Amino acid sequence: MAFSLSDAELQEIYSFALDLGRRAGRILMDGVERRTGEASGRDEKRDVAGEEKMNAVDIVTQTDLDVEAFVLKEITERFPSHKFIGEETYSSGSSREYLITDEPTWCVDPLDGTVNYTHLFPMFCVSIAFILNGIPVVGIIYQPVLDTTYSALVGYGAWQDDGHHTKSRKSLPLVNNPKQVLPPNAPKGCIFSCEWGKDRRDTEGGNMWRKVNSFVNMAAEIGGRGGKGGMVHGVRSLGSATLDLAYVAAGSFDIWWEGGCWEWDVAAGICILREAGGLITTAHPPPNPETDPIEEVRLGSRLYLAIRPAGDSDTETGQQAQERVVRETWKRVQKLDYSRPGA
Amino acid sequence: MAFSLSDAELQEIYSFALDLGRRAGRILMDGVERRTGEASGRDEKRDVAGEEKMNAVDIVTQTDLDVEAFVLKEITERFPSHKFIGEETYSSGSSREYLITDEPTWCVDPLDGTVNYTHLFPMFCVSIAFILNGIPVVGIIYQPVLDTTYSALVGYGAWQDDGHHTKSRKSLPLVNNPKQVLPPNAPKGCIFSCEWGKDRRDTEGGNMWRKVNSFVNMAAEIGGRGGKGGMVHGVRSLGSATLDLAYVAAGSFDIWWEGGCWEWDVAAGICILREAGGLITTAHPPPNPETDPIEEVRLGSRLYLAIRPAGDSDTETGQQAQERVVRETWKRVQKLDYSRPGA
Repeated sequence: MAFSLSDAELQEIYSFALDLGRRAGRILMDGVERRTGEASGRDEKRDVAGEEKMNAVDIVTQTDLDVEAFVLKEITERFPSHKFIGEETYSSGSSREYLITDEPTWCVDPLDGTVNYTHLFPMFCVSIAFILNGIPVVGIIYQPVLDTTYSALVGYGAWQDDGHHTKSRKSLPLVNNPKQVLPPNAPKGCIFSCEWGKDRRDTEGGNMWRKVNSFVNMAAEIGGRGGKGGMVHGVRSLGSATLDLAYVAAGSFDIWWEGGCWEWDVAAGICILREAGGLITTAHPPPNPETDPIEEVRLGSRLYLAIRPAGDSDTETGQQAQERVVRETWKRVQKLDYSRPGA
Repeated sequence: MAFSLSDAELQEIYSFALDLGRRAGRILMDGVERRTGEASGRDEKRDVAGEEKMNAVDIVTQTDLDVEAFVLKEITERFPSHKFIGEETYSSGSSREYLITDEPTWCVDPLDGTVNYTHLFPMFCVSIAFILNGIPVVGIIYQPVLDTTYSALVGYGAWQDDGHHTKSRKSLPLVNNPKQVLPPNAPKGCIFSCEWGKDRRDTEGGNMWRKVNSFVNMAAEIGGRGGKGGMVHGVRSLGSATLDLAYVAAGSFDIWWEGGCWEWDVAAGICILREAGGLITTAHPPPNPETDPIEEVRLGSRLYLAIRPAGDSDTETGQQAQERVVRETWKRVQKLDYSRPGA
């Protein structure tokens, strides 16, 4: 059953989500301040007592839960008929089923980049998506240390900042607006974004070696690796899937290839990337990377390959260039071993 | 010949450098704004004409040169007797000699993370060090997108922000002040910072494979890699050696291991790291990593291993813990092939 919302309703949801992301981010920053001795005067006694009892990991876990509870409460009060899927509540359950249906659904990661947050490294964020008929139609990524929001409303565009909470609003992609063409010999010349992940088994079939072999193919000199060498211009690993995707939408990264993350990590980013003009499909190279169809990404597939927005050149459209880069990446990466029921 | 400056002179140099870093960063941000359509009203005609003639790489190269020229001019006017070594002027020369002597010397990278700057990824910075008797005694790293300064004055400490240009000043390390202990089974539990670099030869003796083998040793499960598996908690690659080091000083990263960068990339960071209580030595594992001495880093050695500030535990001092982590890292990394005359 297809659901429909009016333009005014979607605009309302977008504005609400934009504000909600910033308020959630504020709670994350309160947690930072508690840990760097910048606790505010209010209720200082409680803060000090709390710090004595809680270590850094406890504080982070509690903040994560607090933010999700706050976001859930705000959404439920404003939109009581909408469904809600949050990283914390989902992970505490026993099912790993893909639960997103056609119904109006919020999909939230209160804190992406948890390890970065624990270590006070600025690459963490709040991720809030609103999904209709299985498609993310509103996406908000708020990075509180930089006070930067990446957002999109389907059909309207994608932006950095909002011109309301901040002084300006910039269309995505940021880099070379109007959109810059992709390098003619890509992946050569590209910034490649990837993550090492948690699966570190030292076996050929384990995800670590599948990733390492793929990374090295992308990085090695042209002619190296039996012809697979891609000589990317740079390799970046931030420890946040959500921000990886935001930086692809901004045009800062050209290619993001990853497996193992979940829908709440990517739902907002997928909306923002698409509205910015980017392409996202599966990380899994098909049997024939040269000719097999480039399918729509499945939100819950846990396997993602994103290409940044790209302008037309004299010889190809931006989309043709993106598809070329997808195929060149597929030729160099290995299948990853992540799956899930119901996706 | 040893040089000596009074405390008041060093304080003056520190204040001057702190301000200079911010002013240089402002020029970098002007370059960003020119490229994202946020050019200021003044001289708009020239900006538009400039943009038509210059592509992104031209703008970046010009900005890099402009910032170095600005910093050189400011330093020369204020401290005409001091020597100056800048990344841009050095690189345009033919010598690769190590030129730092005992004389009062400024060592400046006007833009570290140039590729990130080109791509408008926030991990770029200005790096300014003042060196006396071969030792960096003042270090300033300014990251303009975050409006964040990391700085140190030898003997006084290291800080994030300054309480003058910004509302607060925080002592480094940020994480868990007083200093947090290093993990007992390090590198397990550590955040490992590393860069892929530009040398991508696909040969066993090339730096790419020496790095990849080292990265995989650090990342693989305990028991993997013939016992070398270090199971670090996370691997980060930012594309800026200077910021890698700043984040080690802040406590956000535990271990940074790198070869190939130069003194202007690390001079300010070394000062900040040491004042924060961190340790820096050579990336090169000695013949016996368990017992060989942990030597002082040579500024121009191009081979660096940094460990974050660490607190005492019940069983070891912070320094003992740092030395333990140096040795555990040395056991897992390979020698890199970078050299230079005169270092």
